[in-house]
Amino acid sequence: MSNPAPSLTSREVRLAARPQGEPRPTDFELAEAEVPEPAEGQVLVRNLVMSVDPYMRGRMNDVKSYAVPYEVDGPMYGGAVGEVVASEDPRVPVGTFVQHELGWRTHSVVPARAAVVVDPEQAPLPSCLGVLGMPGMTAWVGLFDIGAVRPGETVWISAASGAVGSLAGQLAKLAGCRVVGSAGGDDKCRYVVEQLGFDACIDYRQGALEEQLAGAAPDGVDVYFDNVGGDHLEAAISALKVHGRACICGMISAYNATTPPAAPRNLGQVVGKRLRPEGMLVRDHAHLQGEFVREVGQLLADGRLTAQETVVDGIEHAVDAFLGLLSGRNTGKMVVRVG
Amino acid sequence: MSNPAPSLTSREVRLAARPQGEPRPTDFELAEAEVPEPAEGQVLVRNLVMSVDPYMRGRMNDVKSYAVPYEVDGPMYGGAVGEVVASEDPRVPVGTFVQHELGWRTHSVVPARAAVVVDPEQAPLPSCLGVLGMPGMTAWVGLFDIGAVRPGETVWISAASGAVGSLAGQLAKLAGCRVVGSAGGDDKCRYVVEQLGFDACIDYRQGALEEQLAGAAPDGVDVYFDNVGGDHLEAAISALKVHGRACICGMISAYNATTPPAAPRNLGQVVGKRLRPEGMLVRDHAHLQGEFVREVGQLLADGRLTAQETVVDGIEHAVDAFLGLLSGRNTGKMVVRVG
Repeated sequence: MSNPAPSLTSREVRLAARPQGEPRPTDFELAEAEVPEPAEGQVLVRNLVMSVDPYMRGRMNDVKSYAVPYEVDGPMYGGAVGEVVASEDPRVPVGTFVQHELGWRTHSVVPARAAVVVDPEQAPLPSCLGVLGMPGMTAWVGLFDIGAVRPGETVWISAASGAVGSLAGQLAKLAGCRVVGSAGGDDKCRYVVEQLGFDACIDYRQGALEEQLAGAAPDGVDVYFDNVGGDHLEAAISALKVHGRACICGMISAYNATTPPAAPRNLGQVVGKRLRPEGMLVRDHAHLQGEFVREVGQLLADGRLTAQETVVDGIEHAVDAFLGLLSGRNTGKMVVRVG
Repeated sequence: MSNPAPSLTSREVRLAARPQGEPRPTDFELAEAEVPEPAEGQVLVRNLVMSVDPYMRGRMNDVKSYAVPYEVDGPMYGGAVGEVVASEDPRVPVGTFVQHELGWRTHSVVPARAAVVVDPEQAPLPSCLGVLGMPGMTAWVGLFDIGAVRPGETVWISAASGAVGSLAGQLAKLAGCRVVGSAGGDDKCRYVVEQLGFDACIDYRQGALEEQLAGAAPDGVDVYFDNVGGDHLEAAISALKVHGRACICGMISAYNATTPPAAPRNLGQVVGKRLRPEGMLVRDHAHLQGEFVREVGQLLADGRLTAQETVVDGIEHAVDAFLGLLSGRNTGKMVVRVG
């Protein structure tokens, strides 16, 4: 049963210093670490792809939040998919592909019970970190459970070309909604409309969001899917109809803020329009995982969804990928091919 | 059946000018108007008490909102209770006491179907505008339907000595919650704890709300009942626990604002803590009116609720009463005895 790997060295990305504002490459360090042999109940995974996600920025601060902060001089971690190369648990044998939460390194020793077996025949491995993973499920839960969208409603989705927004918008279209996106730059906006099938997409770099939104959704918005916060949330509050909802999923505009970020000045409308914003974290909805994978997996298999990844090659470029993500240099899910 | 009153003159308060910021007495005018005889289906009401409410400030602006703006040089209106002195509808005979929405004047001609019959034996007439009226139902709906409070939870109620807050806090205590209030000044805070039975009350004039709240609710807040907005809402967002709710019922701190009011700078916590603020207007819940009156009326009759009014005498002082309300010079419901 046991099949210990020979002693080997992993490359891992460590947090060298807590970033002040926008992270700099010097806040990170690529280091080597000896990989212990898996103990009983553990597996050794050779990682193939790893995820960089906006929420990781919050973990770099020494602030109590929903995610435990990274330790300075310790390795970072996050979603990754790889192949089991040594196993001390018969349920997850060598050769199995698994997803786990000890990414940002080339090799991970993972408790077998924390390793989710994935089937590379069913979907490309990066999809496990994107459309069929945390971002995809965030879009699906946020849209249907939190936002409670109904056919015929108008939905606005910010960061529409990103991992979450791109799927949320496509799912809203499939649900019979009119869907407006917003993104930064003409290329992304064109992608959102032409490739993803949104009805319209606003370029937030081209003038006041509120006015652009009034043009794209003249009758107002029923549901706002917020990945950005700040001025986007303010524009949404103005655009939302009576009894409008907002799924507050992320606030990327604030993640690098060193002073308290701009806040909506029109919150009074929450009363008059009886608005319901609601924060969400996908992990609260883990019990829906099976339903999500069946439903969205089928849509993917049927070719009814476009799932794009921006793939960066090599763990030595993982920090670049993360910094690029924070400044919007990705289309769809940003992943790093580790090997 | 018909019993027309002789031609008579009503005194009424008109909006003379739209206030800029804090309303001034010169923005209003006490005028006389000839009262028409009631037509078929109408009744003539001699008003006895009328309501002044914070939401009326919004109606003085020329802004589309949930309430139609008052017209300049036209009479204002709002809740009032009076006695029918002439009737052209057999269902509402002379001598009936009714509540209606054409206050701010000594006499009102009201469609009989818009006049709600009240029983002065059951509760004093000012109560119809307070604990058993719109503010009371706002407290009841906000606490139980929007806030969804449960026994054992910690609730924070701002403007705790006001018409809505004072009832919301007492109802929360009766529901088995730990209840913290906030109010302006030592007298009000003492009243809230000693007379209304709150567990604690913060004086917002005595230093940072967030710190005071951490002292009064060290384990955090499950539900925030917002009547104030601004810095109070910001402190609430910091104090709310994971999955905390906020009933956004009013934002009196913003009603006189001439520039966009201060907004919470910590909205990022809405995601991490999965908070759910929700705006409410009591009129959406009119179908619960009967249940509300039965339940709260019984609590009143049993002496389990304290319902206080601040009564100002004379329609010529109605504007003073309204201005005093906006600056917190009331305890409990502010009403004007018209006669």
